[in-house]
Amino acid sequence: MEHYLDNSATTVTSRAAAEKAVEVMTRVYGNPSSLHEMGRQAEHELRFARASVASRLGASEEEITFVSGGTEANNLALFGAAYARVRSGKNIVISALEHSSVLEAAERLKNEGFSVTSVAPRSDGIIHPDDVAQAVNAQTTLVSVMTVNNESGAIMPVAEIFDRVKEKNSSVICHTDAVQAFGKLPLRVRALNADCVSVSAHKVHAPKGCGAVFVRKGVRLIPRQYGGEQEKKLRPGTEALPLIAAFGAACEEFDTENNYQTVKALNDHAKKRLSQIEGIAFNSPADALPYVLNFSAGRVRSETMLHFLEERGVYVSSGSACAKGKPSHVLSAMGLSRERADSALRVSFSKFNTKEDIDALCDGIELGLKVLRHR
Amino acid sequence: MEHYLDNSATTVTSRAAAEKAVEVMTRVYGNPSSLHEMGRQAEHELRFARASVASRLGASEEEITFVSGGTEANNLALFGAAYARVRSGKNIVISALEHSSVLEAAERLKNEGFSVTSVAPRSDGIIHPDDVAQAVNAQTTLVSVMTVNNESGAIMPVAEIFDRVKEKNSSVICHTDAVQAFGKLPLRVRALNADCVSVSAHKVHAPKGCGAVFVRKGVRLIPRQYGGEQEKKLRPGTEALPLIAAFGAACEEFDTENNYQTVKALNDHAKKRLSQIEGIAFNSPADALPYVLNFSAGRVRSETMLHFLEERGVYVSSGSACAKGKPSHVLSAMGLSRERADSALRVSFSKFNTKEDIDALCDGIELGLKVLRHR
Repeated sequence: MEHYLDNSATTVTSRAAAEKAVEVMTRVYGNPSSLHEMGRQAEHELRFARASVASRLGASEEEITFVSGGTEANNLALFGAAYARVRSGKNIVISALEHSSVLEAAERLKNEGFSVTSVAPRSDGIIHPDDVAQAVNAQTTLVSVMTVNNESGAIMPVAEIFDRVKEKNSSVICHTDAVQAFGKLPLRVRALNADCVSVSAHKVHAPKGCGAVFVRKGVRLIPRQYGGEQEKKLRPGTEALPLIAAFGAACEEFDTENNYQTVKALNDHAKKRLSQIEGIAFNSPADALPYVLNFSAGRVRSETMLHFLEERGVYVSSGSACAKGKPSHVLSAMGLSRERADSALRVSFSKFNTKEDIDALCDGIELGLKVLRHR
Repeated sequence: MEHYLDNSATTVTSRAAAEKAVEVMTRVYGNPSSLHEMGRQAEHELRFARASVASRLGASEEEITFVSGGTEANNLALFGAAYARVRSGKNIVISALEHSSVLEAAERLKNEGFSVTSVAPRSDGIIHPDDVAQAVNAQTTLVSVMTVNNESGAIMPVAEIFDRVKEKNSSVICHTDAVQAFGKLPLRVRALNADCVSVSAHKVHAPKGCGAVFVRKGVRLIPRQYGGEQEKKLRPGTEALPLIAAFGAACEEFDTENNYQTVKALNDHAKKRLSQIEGIAFNSPADALPYVLNFSAGRVRSETMLHFLEERGVYVSSGSACAKGKPSHVLSAMGLSRERADSALRVSFSKFNTKEDIDALCDGIELGLKVLRHR
C-alpha cells in the first residue's frame, strides 16, 4: 500500500489530464504553427488550455504565457523584469523564503551588477508588508514574494505587500511565485495587485514539464528565449502541447473550495494525532495552507525518519525536493534551531489522500520515534 | 483518410513513447529529486532516458542535458557559449540557413554588443567549409552550423566545417543544430568534432516539449536558467520526466538505416511522379536528406496549394511551421526567385508514411495545378 504524502514536491497526473496528453500526442499531434487542419486542431487545444489557466487566475487569455515549469516562470519574471526596467534602476527586492529558482536568479542578477535586498520573515514565518515596503527604494524595479511557502505552507499577505510596495513606488513590477498556492487558494491576479504570477502544472495533477506565467497587460518583459513567433515571442519554441493541454484539463478539474475542506480535515486529523506523540513540534504556522504540514520529530534526523517511513510505504519529504541534502534556508530564516531543522519533515497533501494515509503516517512516526531514538 | 506529410514540423508520438509517458505520469510519478523510493524510481527513468539519448549520439551520459526543446537547446548553446567565452572575444559565426532560434538568439547577442558573422550558402544550398573558415577570426568564440536544413533537407558538411574552424582557431566552440538530422542520419558527436549539439524529441516520434543538448566534457556554458541542482545546475527545474522518458523510449525505437531506406524509396517515388508533372521544380538539393522534399508547384501560391491539399487530407508545409506567413529566408539565401519561393511546398516524411500517402500527394498536386492555375 502506497501513502504518497509528498504532493508539494510533485503530484500524480490525474486521469483526465493523462488522457488529454495522450490524445494530443497521438491524435491531435499537429504543430500549432502549421497552417493546415492538423495545425488548427492543435491551436484549438492550445487556446482552450490557455483560457482554462487564465480563468483560474482571473486573468485574460493574452496575459498567460506557457513555459516549461515554475523555475522557468520565475526566471522569466525576474530576468525579464529586471532587464526591461534597467534604465529605471537596478535594485530588486525578494523575500528570504523564496524558492531556489528565485534566489538563484537573483544571485545571478547580483553578479551582473544588480543590487538585491532580501527581506526576512518575522518569527511567525511570515513576510510582513512593513518590512517589504521599507526595503523598496527609488531604484527598485521588481519585488518578488511567494504566495505560499513550499516548506512551511505559510501564506504571505501578498496583496497587502504589493499594495504597500506600489504606494511607495508605483512603477515597481510585483511578482509572486504562486506555484504552491495555485488550485489550492482562490487566486485572483487583480485582487493580488500582481504584475506577474508564476504557476506550475505538476503541482496540480498535470504532468511535469509545464507551467505558465501571468504577465499583466501593459507589463513588458525581456524574453529569455529567442526564436519563432510562439507565445507572442515572449517564449518561442514549439509549444509543449501534450503538457499544456493536460494542464488545461487539470485546471478544469479544480474544485478549490471542496478540496480545501477535504485537505483541511486531513491536516487537522494529522495534527491531532501527531500532537499526542511526545517529541513532535510543529513548524508550520497555525494558519498555514493545510496542504503542507511541517514538523520536527524528536531527535531523529529527517532522512532517517524519511527512510523508516518509506519502508512502510509512506512517502514524505525532509525539506523541499529541490534542496536535496542541504539545510533548509526556510526553516533557518524562521529562526528554528539547527537540531529542530535537522529533524524536520514536510508532509504535503492532495485531494487524493485519505484518512488511511494520515494514519499510516502517524503510526509510522510513532513507531519510528520508539525504534530510532534509541539507536 | 489522413496523409500527414509534415513530419519536419512535428511528428506523431509513437505508441511506445506515449505509453512510457503515461506510465511516468500515473505510476512512476515521483520527483527525481525526492529521497524516497518514488523519487528513486523516477531518477531511474531519467537515467535510462539519458543513456538512450547519449548512445544515439555516441556521447556519454554526463554530456547530455535535457531541455524543453530544440529552441531552448539552441539558445542555451548560443548564449551559454558566447557568455562563457566573452573574455576571449565577442564574435560568433553562424550560417544564414539556421533555424530562427539560432538566428534570433544571435540577433539578441548582437544587440548586447557581440558581432555576428553570417555565412551564406553557395548556389547548391550548402554551407561550404572554406566560407566558414574564412569568417572565423581570433575574436571568434562560437560557430553554429546546422546539420540538416529544415526546409530543404540540405546536409551540411559539419564535420569538415568544424575541422577547418578548429584548424584556424582551436578554442572556438562548435555547435550544430541537429534537430532535423537526429534519428535520420547516424550522428556521432566525436566524428562531427562538435562541442555542442541540439536535438529535439518531437521530431522523432516523442512528444512536444522536450529536447537535449550535448555539451562535450570540458566545455563550460553559462546557464540560461537558475534554481535547483537538476541537470548539474546547467538547466535547473523539475525534470519534464514524462517527456524525457518518452524521448528515451522513442530513441530505443530508432532504426536509422532501415528507416532511411524506407523514406528514400518514398522520396524517390515522389520525385519520380512529381517530375512527370509540368511546372514542378525541385528546390531540395539532389543529395538532400530524403526525409525532406522541397519543390515549387507552378505559379500556384504555396498556401493556396496547401489548402487545396488539406481538403484531400494531405498535410504539407508552405515553409517551416515556425515562419508562418513570412517569405522563407532559406529559399531566399539559396538564390530562388521570389515567384519560385512563393510557390514552394515542403513535404516531409516519416517512417510511418506509405506509398499511398505519396500518391495522394501527387494526385493532389496534379489536380491542384489544373484547377488552381486558371483561377
